[in-house]
Parts: sequence; structure tokens; C-alpha cells
Amino acid sequence: MINGVTMKILADDYILRALQEDVTCEDVTTNAVMPVPRRGKAQLICKETGVAAGLDIFERVFCLLDETTVFTRFFQDGDAIQKGDVAGEITGDMRVLLTGERTALNYLQRMSGIATVTRAMANELRGTKTKLLDTRKTTPNMRPFEKYAVTVGGGHNHRYNLSDGILIKDNHISAAGGVAKAIAMAKAYAPFVRKIEVEVETLSMLDEALEAGADIIMLDNMDLETMKEAVRRTAGRAQTECSGNVTKERLREIAAIGVDFVSCGALTHSAPILDFSLKNLAPLEQE
Amino acid sequence: MINGVTMKILADDYILRALQEDVTCEDVTTNAVMPVPRRGKAQLICKETGVAAGLDIFERVFCLLDETTVFTRFFQDGDAIQKGDVAGEITGDMRVLLTGERTALNYLQRMSGIATVTRAMANELRGTKTKLLDTRKTTPNMRPFEKYAVTVGGGHNHRYNLSDGILIKDNHISAAGGVAKAIAMAKAYAPFVRKIEVEVETLSMLDEALEAGADIIMLDNMDLETMKEAVRRTAGRAQTECSGNVTKERLREIAAIGVDFVSCGALTHSAPILDFSLKNLAPLEQE
Amino acid sequence: MINGVTMKILADDYILRALQEDVTCEDVTTNAVMPVPRRGKAQLICKETGVAAGLDIFERVFCLLDETTVFTRFFQDGDAIQKGDVAGEITGDMRVLLTGERTALNYLQRMSGIATVTRAMANELRGTKTKLLDTRKTTPNMRPFEKYAVTVGGGHNHRYNLSDGILIKDNHISAAGGVAKAIAMAKAYAPFVRKIEVEVETLSMLDEALEAGADIIMLDNMDLETMKEAVRRTAGRAQTECSGNVTKERLREIAAIGVDFVSCGALTHSAPILDFSLKNLAPLEQE
Amino acid sequence: MINGVTMKILADDYILRALQEDVTCEDVTTNAVMPVPRRGKAQLICKETGVAAGLDIFERVFCLLDETTVFTRFFQDGDAIQKGDVAGEITGDMRVLLTGERTALNYLQRMSGIATVTRAMANELRGTKTKLLDTRKTTPNMRPFEKYAVTVGGGHNHRYNLSDGILIKDNHISAAGGVAKAIAMAKAYAPFVRKIEVEVETLSMLDEALEAGADIIMLDNMDLETMKEAVRRTAGRAQTECSGNVTKERLREIAAIGVDFVSCGALTHSAPILDFSLKNLAPLEQE
Amino acid sequence: MINGVTMKILADDYILRALQEDVTCEDVTTNAVMPVPRRGKAQLICKETGVAAGLDIFERVFCLLDETTVFTRFFQDGDAIQKGDVAGEITGDMRVLLTGERTALNYLQRMSGIATVTRAMANELRGTKTKLLDTRKTTPNMRPFEKYAVTVGGGHNHRYNLSDGILIKDNHISAAGGVAKAIAMAKAYAPFVRKIEVEVETLSMLDEALEAGADIIMLDNMDLETMKEAVRRTAGRAQTECSGNVTKERLREIAAIGVDFVSCGALTHSAPILDFSLKNLAPLEQE
Amino acid sequence: MINGVTMKILADDYILRALQEDVTCEDVTTNAVMPVPRRGKAQLICKETGVAAGLDIFERVFCLLDETTVFTRFFQDGDAIQKGDVAGEITGDMRVLLTGERTALNYLQRMSGIATVTRAMANELRGTKTKLLDTRKTTPNMRPFEKYAVTVGGGHNHRYNLSDGILIKDNHISAAGGVAKAIAMAKAYAPFVRKIEVEVETLSMLDEALEAGADIIMLDNMDLETMKEAVRRTAGRAQTECSGNVTKERLREIAAIGVDFVSCGALTHSAPILDFSLKNLAPLEQE
Repeated sequence: MINGVTMKILADDYILRALQEDVTCEDVTTNAVMPVPRRGKAQLICKETGVAAGLDIFERVFCLLDETTVFTRFFQDGDAIQKGDVAGEITGDMRVLLTGERTALNYLQRMSGIATVTRAMANELRGTKTKLLDTRKTTPNMRPFEKYAVTVGGGHNHRYNLSDGILIKDNHISAAGGVAKAIAMAKAYAPFVRKIEVEVETLSMLDEALEAGADIIMLDNMDLETMKEAVRRTAGRAQTECSGNVTKERLREIAAIGVDFVSCGALTHSAPILDFSLKNLAPLEQE
Repeated sequence: MINGVTMKILADDYILRALQEDVTCEDVTTNAVMPVPRRGKAQLICKETGVAAGLDIFERVFCLLDETTVFTRFFQDGDAIQKGDVAGEITGDMRVLLTGERTALNYLQRMSGIATVTRAMANELRGTKTKLLDTRKTTPNMRPFEKYAVTVGGGHNHRYNLSDGILIKDNHISAAGGVAKAIAMAKAYAPFVRKIEVEVETLSMLDEALEAGADIIMLDNMDLETMKEAVRRTAGRAQTECSGNVTKERLREIAAIGVDFVSCGALTHSAPILDFSLKNLAPLEQE
Repeated sequence: MINGVTMKILADDYILRALQEDVTCEDVTTNAVMPVPRRGKAQLICKETGVAAGLDIFERVFCLLDETTVFTRFFQDGDAIQKGDVAGEITGDMRVLLTGERTALNYLQRMSGIATVTRAMANELRGTKTKLLDTRKTTPNMRPFEKYAVTVGGGHNHRYNLSDGILIKDNHISAAGGVAKAIAMAKAYAPFVRKIEVEVETLSMLDEALEAGADIIMLDNMDLETMKEAVRRTAGRAQTECSGNVTKERLREIAAIGVDFVSCGALTHSAPILDFSLKNLAPLEQE
Repeated sequence: MINGVTMKILADDYILRALQEDVTCEDVTTNAVMPVPRRGKAQLICKETGVAAGLDIFERVFCLLDETTVFTRFFQDGDAIQKGDVAGEITGDMRVLLTGERTALNYLQRMSGIATVTRAMANELRGTKTKLLDTRKTTPNMRPFEKYAVTVGGGHNHRYNLSDGILIKDNHISAAGGVAKAIAMAKAYAPFVRKIEVEVETLSMLDEALEAGADIIMLDNMDLETMKEAVRRTAGRAQTECSGNVTKERLREIAAIGVDFVSCGALTHSAPILDFSLKNLAPLEQE
Repeated sequence: MINGVTMKILADDYILRALQEDVTCEDVTTNAVMPVPRRGKAQLICKETGVAAGLDIFERVFCLLDETTVFTRFFQDGDAIQKGDVAGEITGDMRVLLTGERTALNYLQRMSGIATVTRAMANELRGTKTKLLDTRKTTPNMRPFEKYAVTVGGGHNHRYNLSDGILIKDNHISAAGGVAKAIAMAKAYAPFVRKIEVEVETLSMLDEALEAGADIIMLDNMDLETMKEAVRRTAGRAQTECSGNVTKERLREIAAIGVDFVSCGALTHSAPILDFSLKNLAPLEQE
Repeated sequence: MINGVTMKILADDYILRALQEDVTCEDVTTNAVMPVPRRGKAQLICKETGVAAGLDIFERVFCLLDETTVFTRFFQDGDAIQKGDVAGEITGDMRVLLTGERTALNYLQRMSGIATVTRAMANELRGTKTKLLDTRKTTPNMRPFEKYAVTVGGGHNHRYNLSDGILIKDNHISAAGGVAKAIAMAKAYAPFVRKIEVEVETLSMLDEALEAGADIIMLDNMDLETMKEAVRRTAGRAQTECSGNVTKERLREIAAIGVDFVSCGALTHSAPILDFSLKNLAPLEQE
């Protein structure tokens, strides 16, 4: 959830750095033509149909520059939005609006793009028990924003990072000397509040993992038939996650197998943006 | 250019933060199954055909974790790379390789994705005088990496940020009270090493901008006929840049008009990643 | 685990700040009497009997000041150590040894103190199935060091922080409108890799929590009889944790009840240090 | 003194880091059950008898998360407080109260614990000329908070760090080639606003130090008889500080000798916390 | 321009660090004699005749410590100010005024000193077409403040740093293999919004640079005769900048030659301060 | 003292920020003409006669960019240096030498300028007991470098900042209600290792300060006769410091009065730089 606490603890620092990336010393153009402050208003226009996400971040960019900036929103995160819709109006020193515009849009567009792709994929799973998951394949220094956008679009979050979830992959299994040993080592080492997830590629690995008490089984790059048998054998003793080559087209047949989760890196690593722009900036007569 | 100096001044801080995003306290899984260091080697495999970009950053992620890590590359930034190619081999403490893997790939994949899309678009312009430009529509806190990836793909960089280039847009023109006034104010205010670029939407704005001595004219969302006339009238007195609705399909006809530059936000905001993975991790017998 | 990766991602920044806390501009005394570098060696002496923890951090303090410092250790983290034992020898620029001494000892002593108290309590649980847990009652900006020290002493870590574990307390239950509703909301909201822990004060809350599918039940401030009944009713359907007024004296009777875990804030918030000092600093004849 | 200036220059950064330590991305439990803000009030209850210290820091933790949080205190730093006393009431978004609770208490409890131990020791010195001093044996990244807590408890601060005080120890004396030489070098090197303190172990070192013009003599680990003779010989020519093996039990006899100061590392390195908790959180009907 | 946006993005961090440089833990003297807040007012007195610059930074120092501080200014940046003038009045907690005083004055005095020297030199150029430029010879971590002060004094800014301007010097020419090659390489490499400046020492280098299409020619350490010929040959094809041994005395004869710009490092590296002090601090009766 | 420890704890962070000030993304010019590394050597030439200071910082700038850079110095900090002297030779990647040049020189020139002015003033005091002091009138974020440069030039440091020295000024005296009260409050509040300095403007204030046990008396803006009487009355009971309107010309007559110290803000706030340049950069044939 992106709320005031998140902003103070987590987001403000990222946003300020993003602003510094865009302003080494000053916004030369704006300062050249507007030597004194003048309050104005602009509209945030949606230019593509999709799902809005990141409106709090959009607003925060301007408020970090000038706390008197006011953003009135006509849509909320998660709302479907159409090309041409006015998502909100922003009022403040026109110089602040111009200087913050690009950074604010860069966040909003990317987050909305992810929510839009996620919504489309999650819709394919409607009516099934299968839930859509994200991955750690996020853009560096964008993880909190991107993982939040996935939830806005109707997806669910997998572990946040390497510290808050156990996921035993092939290399870990080799290092430990087998599936059962790896699970035992993880149980012994990790804080007990962690569930143990194991990535398996074959049915015999699955059996070993179930026997050893894995909480979650990742069925990695299995064909549909094998996956079906894997779910049957698991029989509710662990949660199952389908991973690998997950495309929108394959989602319904994966869900039909009855896996609990299907994870998809493309939600965050390859979603195109949803286009927005700031338009109709005009000075306020009086406030 | 990404070189050692860039790393120290600019990139290391971003990379370290990206690692901290992925590791709150430790990589629980890896530390559970590998209690002691053991050197190993893994291969960096390309899983899609495209253009490699970001190999220095990929390497740096691991070296920041452990300076004894060694990355031997078989490809260079800018090389075309095929699905299945081994891009390089990385040797080090296997725990470091596992912990750094995701962050390193997240950089490499995104940068290579941008280079790949850029290369495809730049190829459309081959044989013409028109150059492909990026924009400031980059992912927050990724600008240096993304702008570099554009150059690797054969594109050129527009201004880096709001401080190092003048770009007078419609709102600036309104605030100044006209094109000529805006240009005059910018010339008076900005460091003299800045070129003055003006965004024009009509031919009369173009005439005014040329008259006032603009260095670069951005032809914004013009139809082809108007743009052709704009280039004709400019007659080399300024550089011209076509902006707005630039797609790969339209590039050749835009170039045919003879504009100097064409800019495209999608290079950085909507390029899908180029997929890579780290495979075949195995302990070293001896070194 | 504190290893090289932890240092780079997490510990170095804390340590550097601790050094800056102790050195605003310079170590005036040392620089006054030692105008030029001279290599020397000193011994790290243990002055109380207990458990060593934090030797890597001790070493790192000096290496951050001068990477040529060498620490040869005669004990490892987790080793029992006696008053008078030489824990290790440190060699380097004598000025670096003097300047870093206090900060290095402040870490080592505190971490060893926690390991020592933890070991004593964990020993009370030997032969039982009950495991000793720490809490989030750590010293601010010392959590990774203190939680690691707990594991060195034979304790186990509870959740690291508010993000990586669910713990539904009375206020959360009130806000949600009941135990079952709170669990349902947590399951719907949290990443699926999180286990759900609920704090219960009565047996009826326990029943409701078990019914709703809690993974872990915290039995909070229950008397022994109630706790015994709680464990009986749980019957392995969830893990149980005893919390509140846990002292060394009560540990055996708590364990006898058969709870899975017992958590104790005092491990980190009230452990006295284990005393060490740096002694016998002498210049090296030659190296 | 902890005042608004201290907060801005010094404390805010530490507190924010402590919050980030406890919240990687969000407080999952709280956000799950409280999707929207709701103002509430809670009571800060003291659970042990002692001395309150750190109420400003306690308040600041919440205000950094949300500046609309209001803390009404019924006790001030330095007040004696009894088990069961309500130290204050805090009003704000209930989610902020829950998220900040642990960090706020971790500061308050530790600072109050130090003040409590200090008060008990300082009371032993009542009626004598001897003052109780702290040392640099503080918890890393807690020094300003811990040293302040010592003053709240009635102790006095020794030097803050290696830069703002001269303390010539045995190793410095060896390096300089004798007590007198070390003092001379320190006088020549250090800013003249520094007093020169020398640690002596024998009466002959004392004589040499007095001769050389030391401002303060630290009598290190001397038996009572020797210390008495040392104070006699000093005869007011320098201030005297007793150091080493200082326990509450020995304080009165040390003071009887007439030393000016007695320093005790345990004030900061081994004080147990004073227990507080946040209770009775309830939503506000209206404000 | 120093405005609110500059403060948030750029200046606040520098100012906070400057305050931390002056306050390790607290302002001991002030806190000793003023245990409680009391509002007061003081006057900012100018003690030398010159040009005021940096009043926003002066104000900001106090507001960062306490946002309720109010600075009423009687002069603006750029105003001529006389010895004895009251530049403004500052009202706030007297402790904040005392603690922030030195840091605030250190900024104001230095910035005003630079503006004063710049004004004196710029006045020499009045009535000519030649403009006065600064350089990158600024005090480390003071560049934004010093470059702004130059503009306040009537000078103009050269490039801000190595990233936002091309300046090809002798070593670059050697590395490239000649003036023309260096210019060609720069044009191929740099973002097209950069102007290309080349430093030439001889007339033949000048010819080569003009031929190759340099935008700006720096005439480095040329005697007046050569410079005159250089300007004649350039004939408006590029802008010209005179650099090297530029003193106030030589300015008029340099301008007479008709160069466009003359740059002077001494503006920022050797300007003495303009003296100000905070006087007449007195408590407010009531507010 | 600037040594390796100072670098790690204090200087590196400032230097890195200064480099980032000069390089937003890259050194465009250098990277354009030197696409690949090539080792070269350059000479550091002194262009004015004075005192060298800051050679370690000069070297460190380059080493932070590339640790393989080697600086061989022919002069040490504190050495008199003549116009034309080669201060040292620096060898490394020519791109690193070019990129770091300006920042390295900006530090060296400013520090050497301060050392040069200080030496000239300190020489006036030769043969007297009076020592030359600096003040807190330093350039923001340059204090450690500037105070060090004063010592290199033969001056002495006054307090480092507001935390490590007591200096009771007129406003403090007013707030406390008199000189004696202020001194008593300072003694009660401050760590006992602080000397108490009081600023007095009249002989009666002096008497009161001596009576109250001040350690140091600052004689502020007194005429010579009054100052002479002040020193006579003090009669060694405290140290004396002359402050205000201290110029090189007045130094000898001030010293003749027999004050212990004379402080001068101009050492750091108005010293012009000492000019150096990096010359004769040439590629190395082989190494």
C-alpha cells in the first residue's frame, strides 16, 4: 500500500533522487521565462485506455518541490480510465508544475502501464482459483512502485526480496546435496515465519519436496501434462506455483490445471507505459 | 559512456541501492544452504536475439559485493547477440553469484532491451541524414543507464535533463508572451553554451522562432506536409527535430522529409527487456 | 549470517556512521603523539566468560579505516570464551588501531553480551522441542547485529521487521472486527509467502484463530494452565509461541508444556555487554 | 540537550533509519486490516519504576511518519515514574501509531533504562563533591541519545568523542616516549580549547603529569590507598577522575577520597531497559 | 536562480551538511544559558559596501532549524548595500538564531563577496558588447551558490560542469590528433544540444577550428594583437571568449577588441567576503 | 591532520560530492576524444610563490576515480614553493587525469592559498609568545580542509565547532543575566573537558569573568591601551585572545601587548587561492 507512512519511510528518498536526476542545478527554461511565482492550474489527461496507478506518487513529486501544490483527482488507483479522461487537476506555482511534470509523469505512466497489463492478465484468470503473481524481475530502484502497481492491477505479490522469502532453486539444491537436504537446511536456518518454497522440474523432485515438508512448490517450465500430474500428487499438501513461459494466451489452460498461483515476470519487466500528459496549464485569476 | 569514472561518480550508488532493495538483511536461501564460501563459475546465456548493452553494469553488481569476482565477456556492448549465445562467464564465490544474480540481470535485460529496440529503429534511418533521439521519458533513477543504452543501440541522446538544455514549450511561450520573447528571455538568462530549442506547432511559430535565432526547432505533432514545408522554410538556419507519434513504421517517411532529428520516447519508456539468464553454476575444482 | 555480502550491502554503512560518531574531524590525541604511521600489533583480550559474537564486525571497523589491517582470530563466533583468553591479534598502523578501538569494541562487546545471555537461556531449553526466539525489541540501528548475535548464542530469529512477517495483535483484531476477519484480511492482503501469526489471550480467541487457518498462534501472557490447554487444543494445527514475562527461571516449565517457541525481548534489550579490551599494543620490529 | 535544533541536525536522520530498519516496504499487518486512515488515541504506560528519558524522541518517531500526530505528556524527562503511571497520550492515524510503536518504544525504553541506572548511581554520590561521568562505551549510532539520557539521570558527560577531548592513555605515552613528552606533544598539536587529560597508573606517573601541566588526571584502576595519596598529591593542581571497576557498591568509598569525577561505562553499555508499552488504542469518536 | 525548487532539490542538503559541520551534537554554549525557548529578534547588519547575494540561503539556514523563523528583508539579492545598512530582521527562537548565525553568515558573506567583485568587473564592461563569464574554478561543494552569486553581480555563467558543455583543450586536441579531428569526434559523440567550444592558442588553430565548425572559440592567453586578429578572422562565424590573465585593469582593452566573452576564475576563487553581522539580538516582548 | 583515517571517515564523502558536482553524467569532452583508456603522466606546476597545502586531497581526488592513479610528490604540505616549481607528477588513465583535474586543483589551490596567507601572518608573530588562531568563518562544507590548511601555514586552530568549545558572547551573557551567571551555567551544563571562554568588551566584564573562573578571555575589539590593561589584570589567571579587526599590519603591536592568542577570520574567509596547474600531459610509452 502506498500511504503517508510509505512516503516518509520509503518513497520520498527515491522521488527526490529522481528529481535530482532531472535537475542538476535548475530548470533553465522555466526559470528564464518565469522569473517570479504565479499560481496556475493544469489538467492530467489520460491518452490511452487502461488502469490508473501511482496517483499518490504523481502528487508527491510536486508536493516535495512545493508543499502548497494541490492535486484534485477524479480517478483513484485501480480505476479503469479511458483515452481522453481528465484524471485530475493540479494547482500550484506554474514553475513547480513545469519542473516536476516529467518526473511525475514518468512514475505515473510506468505504474499505470504495469497495472494495465496486470489487469488484462488477471482478467484471464477470473472465475478460477488461480492467482497471478509478480516476480523480482523489477526495474532497479523501482521495486516498491512496481510491486504496488501489480496489486492495483489485480495481481498478487510474490516475495519482496531475497530476505523475506525462501525460494530454493536448482543451484541451492545442488549445493545442499538434494531437495530434502536443502529443505532441511532452510528450515534450520531461516526465521520460522518464512514459508519454504522449492522449485522443482520433475515429478520425483516434487515427491521429495512434499515429503520434506515444503510449503510451496514452484513447478518450473513443466509441460501441461506434467503440471497436471504434479498438482494431483500435491493434493493440497503444499501450495503450487506455475512459473516459466507464462503468457496471456496460456493463462486459461494453466488455470484449468488447478495450480494455486502463476507468476509472470513480464508484468514488471516488459509492460509498456500508459500514456498521460499534463495539459491546459493556465494561470489562475485569483484564488 | 559507462567507464570506471562513471561507476565511481554515478553508478555505484544506484547499484548499491538496487542491491539493498533486494537484500534487506541477507539472502536467506543461499546462506541457509551454503554456510561457507566456495568458488564457482556460471554462464551468462542470452535467451533472445537482440543487442547487448550493460555488460559493465552486470559485472559491477557482483564486484560491489565481492571485488574478487571475475567476469569474462565474449560479447561487447553494441554487439548483436543471438538466442543461445554465451555472453560471458562469471567466476566467484557462488553465494555472491546467487545473491547478485537478479539485480545484475535486471540491469542487463532492461538496458539490452532498450538497445535492441533502438537498433531496430535506427536501422530504419540508415542511409538518411536523420538521426534518432531519445527523450527524458526514462524510468526514474535509471536515466544514465537508459540513455547510455540508447547510444549503444545506435541512437543519439537529446538533453540529459532540465538543466543542460533549453527547450521552450507552449507553456513557456505563453508565460513569456510569445515565441520571440521567450527566445530572447532564454538567451538572456541561460549560460551561453546552451543551444536554444523551441517547440513549434505551426508554420508561423516556426517563422518567428527562426527570426528570433533559435538553434533548434522541434516540429511537434505536425502532419507530413506541414513538416516538409517547415524543413523547406528553415533552410538550414536551424536544426530540426520531429517529435510526436513517432513509430518505427513512420520513420522512413519522416526521414524522407529531411529533418535532422527524430525523437522517440518509446525507446526508453516502453521497450520490453531482452532476456538473459545465469546458467550452469558449478563449483570450481581448483583455481 | 554476517559475511562479505552483508558487509557491503548492510553493515559498512552502519559502521562508517558509528566511526563518524566517534570522530568528528580527527583523533586528536593519537595524531598528536604519532605524527607518522608505524605498524604495531595488539591483543584482543576477553575479560569475562561468555560467548564470542561479532568478530567480523570488530575486524571490519579497522579495515574500513585501513584495508591493510589484519586480524588473526583464535576464536570464532559462537565459541565459548573464558576471562583472560586472547581472542585474536590485530596488526596495522598503530594510529588506526587506537582510533578504531572503541567503536570496534562497542560492537563486539554488545554482540557478545547478547550471545552470552542467549546461550544461557537456550541451554535451559536443551532436550526439549521448544526453541528460543528474539523479538523486534532491538536497539535502533543495531537490528542486524543484534539478531545475528541471537543466532550465534543458539536462539532463533522471529520476523525481522514489520514488512516480512504478519503478526495480528489485539489492536489489529479490533480494527478488523474479530479474529477471523483479521486473518481473512491478512490472507487477502499479504504476499502469499507470509505465514499468518495471531496473538491470542483467551482460549476462545485461540479456537477462532485455528478455525480461520492461522499458521502461528502467539499465546500472550497466559498462565501455565491455560497455555497447556491451548497447546492441547492446537494439536499441531498451527505452531505455538509463548510470549510475555519470559524469564530464564520460567523457561523449563514453559517448555514442558510443549509450545514450539518462546520469545524473549530481554535477549536484545537488556543484555549486559561481555567485556573485551585491546591490550599490549606494541610496534612491530619488522614485517 | 535534545531540542528542535538537535532533531533537525542530528536525530531525524537516525530515527528515519531506525524506522527504515523496521519497515522495508510497509507494515503488512496494519495495512491489511486498516485500509483507510482513522484517528485514534493510545496511552503510553510505564511498566516499571524508574526515570523517564527520551519522550521527545518517542514523539518524534510518530511525527516523522505523520506530522499531525499529537503527543500529550504527563511526565517530563528526568521525572521519577512509577509502574502503572500513564506517561502520556498519543493521538493520530491509528495506522501510524501501530507502525511507529516499536521504534518509538525501543528509543524510550533504552534511554529511560540508562537514566534509571544513572539516577541510582548518582544518588550514591549525593552530598559529596564527586560527580558521575559516562564514557564512550555507548551503543554504536546511539551516542547522542545515550549521553543525553545520562544527563537526564543526573550524570555528567565526559568527552563526546575522539575529536573533542584529549585523553592520553598508556599507548600514547609509549608512542610519545613518556608522560611529559606526550603532554607536550598534545599541547603543541591540539586546539588550545582542549583540556589535556592523562591516564596514570602509578604515583610517579601522576607526579610527571602534574609537572607537565595536565588539566585532568585519570586515576586508572588504582586501589583506594593509592588513589587517596594521588588526590592528596594533586592538591587541586588538576582535576581527578577515578576510572575502572566502578560499581554502585564502591561509589561511596571512592567519593570519600575526594576525587572530582568517577566514570562508569556500565551506565550506557549494560543498563537494562525501563519497560513501557502503548496501550488502550481506540478510535476517536470525533475530534 | 535560487528559488523554492532549488532549495528542495539542491540547496537543503548542502545547508544541512554545513550545519552538521558546525554542530556535532549541540550548541553547548547556547543550550547552557538558554534552557528554554524564547522568541527574539536580531538585525542583519552590513559592515562593508558592496552587493548583497544569498539572502534566501541566509534565511533558509534558520528555517531548516526551525520553520517558524521569519526573515524580513530590506534588501534584495543584487542590491547595492552600504556599510551600516540593515539588510533585514530575523525573528525566531533565540537559540535557533544563535546556533544558525555562523553558518548563515558564512554563506551570505561569501556569496555577497563574489557578487561584489563581479559587479565591479562587470561595470568595466558597461557599454561594450563583451560579457563577463565565470569558470569552474569554484570552491568544492559551493558551485551552485557561487555561480548564482556571479549572476547576481552581473556576470554570466559559463558551463556548469563537465557534463553540460564541451570544451576541447590542448590535451583533448593531442589525444584526438588535431583540432579538426577533435571537433569531429565531439560532434559525433556529444548530445546535439551541446555547443562545441575549442581552446586555441594560435591563429592557425583558430582557422582550423572555424573550418571544422566550432561554435565557440576560446582565445587562450593571447596577446592583444593576436586576439584582435583572431576576432577579425572569426568574423562572427563563432562566438569568441578571451581567457587567461584577466584582471580588472585589462578588461576595457580586452573589450575594445570586440570579443563576445571574457572569463575570469578569480570571481569565484579569490573574492574576499563581504562582511555582515547579526546584531542587537533581543527577546520579543510579545508576538 | 589529514591522513588515511581522515580520508575514510571524513574527506572521501566531501570529495565524491565535489566530483559529482562537476560530473552530472560524464565528462563529455574527454570521453568524446578518448574512447579507450591510455595511461599518461602530467606535471603539477606551481604558478605563484607560497605555501603548499592539500597535496593528499589533490591525490585522493584522482584515486577515488581510479585507485591505480599514482601521485609522486616533490613537495610536502607546509613547504615553501616557488612559481614554476614542479610540485609533483601524476600518472594514470589520461581520462581520469582530465576528469579529476579541476576538482583536485580547486581543493589544492584553496588550501594552499589559506596556508600562504596564514604563513605570512604567522611570520609577523615570530619571536613573540602570541599564537595565530583561525575562526569558524570557514566556507561551508570546507571546514576540515580549511582548518587543516591553517595549521599547515603555521596557525593554530580555535574550536572546531559549536559542540567542542564554549564561547560565551554578549547575547549569551544577556540571556544568562550577567557574566558570572553565564559562566556558572556553562560550567554546570557543559562536559567538564571543555574550557570556558568568555568574550569581554570592557575591563569590568573582564574582572567579572576572571572572578568567575573563565579559562580563556576573548578581548573583543578593544583598543590597544585597554587590551594592555586587560592582559595586565589577567596576570596569567586565564589565557587571553585578541579578536576583531586583526590585520597583518597590526599583528606586531598586538603581540607586543602579550596576549596569548590573536584570531583572524580572514585566514579562511578571504584568502585568495595559490595558483597551480596540471601541465604537460603526455601518454606513457610503456610502464
